[in-house]
Amino acid sequence: MKTYYECIPCFVNQTLRMISSKESPHHEKVLREVLFTLSEADFSNSPPELTKKVFDVFEKHHGFYDHYSDIKKHSNSYVMSMYDELISTVNSSPNPFDVAARLAIAGNVIDFGANHVFKNEYIHQNIKDALAAENIDLTELKDEVFKAKKILYLGDNAGEIVFDKLFINQLPREKVKFVVRGGAILNDALMEDAIDIGLTQIVEVISNGASLPGTVLKYCSKEFLEVFDKADLIISKGQGNYETLSEQKDKNIFFLLKAKCPVIARDLNCNINDYVILKNQDKSPLKD
Amino acid sequence: MKTYYECIPCFVNQTLRMISSKESPHHEKVLREVLFTLSEADFSNSPPELTKKVFDVFEKHHGFYDHYSDIKKHSNSYVMSMYDELISTVNSSPNPFDVAARLAIAGNVIDFGANHVFKNEYIHQNIKDALAAENIDLTELKDEVFKAKKILYLGDNAGEIVFDKLFINQLPREKVKFVVRGGAILNDALMEDAIDIGLTQIVEVISNGASLPGTVLKYCSKEFLEVFDKADLIISKGQGNYETLSEQKDKNIFFLLKAKCPVIARDLNCNINDYVILKNQDKSPLKD
Repeated sequence: MKTYYECIPCFVNQTLRMISSKESPHHEKVLREVLFTLSEADFSNSPPELTKKVFDVFEKHHGFYDHYSDIKKHSNSYVMSMYDELISTVNSSPNPFDVAARLAIAGNVIDFGANHVFKNEYIHQNIKDALAAENIDLTELKDEVFKAKKILYLGDNAGEIVFDKLFINQLPREKVKFVVRGGAILNDALMEDAIDIGLTQIVEVISNGASLPGTVLKYCSKEFLEVFDKADLIISKGQGNYETLSEQKDKNIFFLLKAKCPVIARDLNCNINDYVILKNQDKSPLKD
Repeated sequence: MKTYYECIPCFVNQTLRMISSKESPHHEKVLREVLFTLSEADFSNSPPELTKKVFDVFEKHHGFYDHYSDIKKHSNSYVMSMYDELISTVNSSPNPFDVAARLAIAGNVIDFGANHVFKNEYIHQNIKDALAAENIDLTELKDEVFKAKKILYLGDNAGEIVFDKLFINQLPREKVKFVVRGGAILNDALMEDAIDIGLTQIVEVISNGASLPGTVLKYCSKEFLEVFDKADLIISKGQGNYETLSEQKDKNIFFLLKAKCPVIARDLNCNINDYVILKNQDKSPLKD
């Protein structure tokens, strides 16, 4: 997905949140350089590529800093504190695959790229809403999952990966590789998060080698690209992975996400806050 | 008031609203040039001065265009349709000065600089809220009004000026000059709006000679500056006039406004959505 004009204020807001998170005389320099970078940016690039450029400016002036470190730890431990209850919800259902997939989509609400603020209550409301949502049809994904030989599961955010763990328990785990980002960006899940929540104990977890909040193949490692090429089913979580892979029409990708901003809702032809499951070749989300 | 970093996304959003209001292949050029302009802008200038720079970029590529023309006409006629009822509210009160001043402050909600969307219902809610607000103390302003020999009343937005008309009816009108902007910018009131709602029939109306959404003295006409210098009391409506005159400590100015954005609320040391009456020399709003 290209960067729409309406994405630009988000990059500026992202910058403001970053500079307000760290005391420094360089704040004004960072802000001005981000504005200049945006004035020259290639809008045919996806939003995560421009987010990376914003972080690069910050890093140039401040050095490396993982702004979302505490938030990621909190998100992981908060969702893990609900884990037993969530497992019961899945296991007590006549359709555990369906319930676990819905919870995985609900978990995508934990996103500090799209949301300015986030409260624990939102998670509970999203669980309720996703379990009740009428437009989620998992028939096709379920068919593909059980036909597939090599499944690549592209993770998105810390905290959210606990919900992914629940869903992976419903998949043929020996065929699944779970993917984390290669370096800190926003609240995106890293290898340390996967270890933290015990995901590495149930499934193979690999890094994509790139520190972008999405999956931009040209920046990913050779090792990851080999796995990506061989996968016959890709489960892609979240907005960032959708924004960076939506044009990848030659791969069998299912995008699972919550549409959290008006731009992506328009691109997906859905309503804002919809829970979306979309097959790559489809033009519009899978709805009833 | 200087431009805070948090004001920058607002200028970008303002640009997006302007370019979406007019079909043109120049949209991307305008957006890029605004971003570049902001990257180099002098943040010690007030926000209205930077808003003017955004409009200048648009005008360079599109020619002059009054984006808010229809909105201004609608605002004037909508509030005029309530005028008789509002007069009754004022006249049936034991303290018409107080009620009319509160309505004038409530009317400041009609602001397309600070608000993205505006609905007629907001006006009614703001009237109720401003009439009931506990932190509005008009004692000092009332004293000054009746001591003053030359009162300058700086108007702000179309629609809002109907509420100002109500308040001006409670002032010694022969001592009052009402000021409109010198050219179209946002939904700020122009001479044509003052004529439209019959304000010119009850008070002398002059232009400040500048098309900025505030009162930046260096851009105002010589004629206006002479009147400004001679005034011994200035009633200044709205955020834009506050942002551009808050440093003018040698003049006797009362700022009347609704604090509609977090930046101005912080600068004023009040809560967002507060109705504010602030004397220029005071450090914090006049509260009980």
